[in-house]
Amino acid sequence: MTHTKRIAVIGAGAWGTALALQAARAGAHVTLWARNPAALSAGRVMPRLPGFALPETITVTDTLPRQAELMLLACPMQHLRAVASALHPCAPVIACCKGIEQATGLMPLQVLGEVFPHSVLGVLSGPNFAHEVAADLPAAAVLASAERAQARRLADLLTTPAFRLYASDDPTGVQLGGAAKNVVAIAAGATMGAKLGENARAGLITRAIAELARLSHALGGKVETLSGLAGIGDLLLTCTGAASRNYRLGLAVGQGMPAHAAAAALEGVAEGMATAPALHRLAQAHGVSTPVIATVTSLLAGEIDMAQAATTLLARPVGHEFA
Amino acid sequence: MTHTKRIAVIGAGAWGTALALQAARAGAHVTLWARNPAALSAGRVMPRLPGFALPETITVTDTLPRQAELMLLACPMQHLRAVASALHPCAPVIACCKGIEQATGLMPLQVLGEVFPHSVLGVLSGPNFAHEVAADLPAAAVLASAERAQARRLADLLTTPAFRLYASDDPTGVQLGGAAKNVVAIAAGATMGAKLGENARAGLITRAIAELARLSHALGGKVETLSGLAGIGDLLLTCTGAASRNYRLGLAVGQGMPAHAAAAALEGVAEGMATAPALHRLAQAHGVSTPVIATVTSLLAGEIDMAQAATTLLARPVGHEFA
Repeated sequence: MTHTKRIAVIGAGAWGTALALQAARAGAHVTLWARNPAALSAGRVMPRLPGFALPETITVTDTLPRQAELMLLACPMQHLRAVASALHPCAPVIACCKGIEQATGLMPLQVLGEVFPHSVLGVLSGPNFAHEVAADLPAAAVLASAERAQARRLADLLTTPAFRLYASDDPTGVQLGGAAKNVVAIAAGATMGAKLGENARAGLITRAIAELARLSHALGGKVETLSGLAGIGDLLLTCTGAASRNYRLGLAVGQGMPAHAAAAALEGVAEGMATAPALHRLAQAHGVSTPVIATVTSLLAGEIDMAQAATTLLARPVGHEFA
Repeated sequence: MTHTKRIAVIGAGAWGTALALQAARAGAHVTLWARNPAALSAGRVMPRLPGFALPETITVTDTLPRQAELMLLACPMQHLRAVASALHPCAPVIACCKGIEQATGLMPLQVLGEVFPHSVLGVLSGPNFAHEVAADLPAAAVLASAERAQARRLADLLTTPAFRLYASDDPTGVQLGGAAKNVVAIAAGATMGAKLGENARAGLITRAIAELARLSHALGGKVETLSGLAGIGDLLLTCTGAASRNYRLGLAVGQGMPAHAAAAALEGVAEGMATAPALHRLAQAHGVSTPVIATVTSLLAGEIDMAQAATTLLARPVGHEFA
């Protein structure tokens, strides 16, 4: 008899629910922790991911699970510390959220490292719309852990033919890509809002990748990770369409609306608003020049307007492409 | 009195005409060579780039220029050898076309190297829609030459505040990006045509960048160039919108139309049809695994259908992201 994996998913938003479906497809018995398990309809559909019925191998509960071979934390980034602190992990813990903790400037694995100093930790990131993963459409992502073989082992627990998890030993670069994509999405949206054109947007995104690669290197991460699924891959998804709140915020700012008014008009929060200044501080602390992040930060703070933002970026000296 | 630069642009298609406008803005006296100079309207508008009147500093002629400080060759790739052979260059020559010469499998600078063994050569590439460059909207591109300082000097001749030319000493990587983008655009279009979703497209483009970086390395080019303006930058422009004929060809093939029928239905030529097998041969000759290029080649040759193409790509083992 084959051993059945037990995987716990914490957080029943769209992404957590999609990950539960994916874990079930990978052959696991899944416990999906939800704030309100009664929200599961009679047809076994979770409200945040309509259209996908959960199989019987997924149990929805509001009791935090104690036993699992793998825990996936799919709560919002700003809740990660509180949620993790309520768990007693006896299993590897994978952060499935993206961003920076506003109170501390820390990335997901740094937060988890403080809560679980003795656990195996990993982070999952990539170009993944939840509803497409739920529908078992093809997708790829990265699972990063400090140690290569560990990353591969964790990735294998969730990989199926359609959902391909590449292993990485660069959690720093992977998390940086996940955090920064919302900032770059604001910049990309602003470029289009100001009618600067598709050349300008493509150039901006490409130069943003170059500055993030420099920042990754300064933080002890790898340069090439930003050219991978958690870097350019995720940017491709976030920076070219209005599906992203951050992109829509940028669009409004590029059209001349003040950032605070544009943010107030949004349904939900554009994470990049808080991530931009946090990444800017991080870059400054490490002496790295990040013109795109700096410009978005000033633009959002109302220190410069869109015309000044464009002028600032265009006035930079052009040197060699990879200096 | 300041010396006025003299720049010759060979080819009055949309891109050649946009480059002539750009060279004039950079302060040059420009000679724009056109097959049919009479096509210049009374309002000084070229038919291939409507909406933009040429200033008096641009002379349109069908006499191949003999004196210039810089020659920009903006003819189609398959005409490059014939056009170059008719020139007597006494100036650096910049290839402004993208692709592979079908008869030989050579890239632009290899062709020019055969015709002008003693000239300084460069290649210009990047995410540049001609009409946006003509309109002086912001754009960035790369100018690559074998030697860094030379590349910088050539780039400076054309750079203006809005059109930013980064220097590169990796012509191989730059030309590979320019050639391969049409193949990747076909793959991206096919992914969307087959309704595989945006995750699949973003994953495919990202993995294509990784395989092109490997191929660049094997050809003596650099890995990072594919993460730059001539690589991911150009892919961003080509692979996400129906402005590209190659993308539209892929879309039709993804919907189940045979490639030859899809190609026949196109207005104009989808360069990727010929580039895919040429790049595939190049990769095989260098022992590099290029699954995306190989799959597009088989799909276009009718050896596999779209379902098999998707299965082939998904059946590949997932290892470490950057092996």
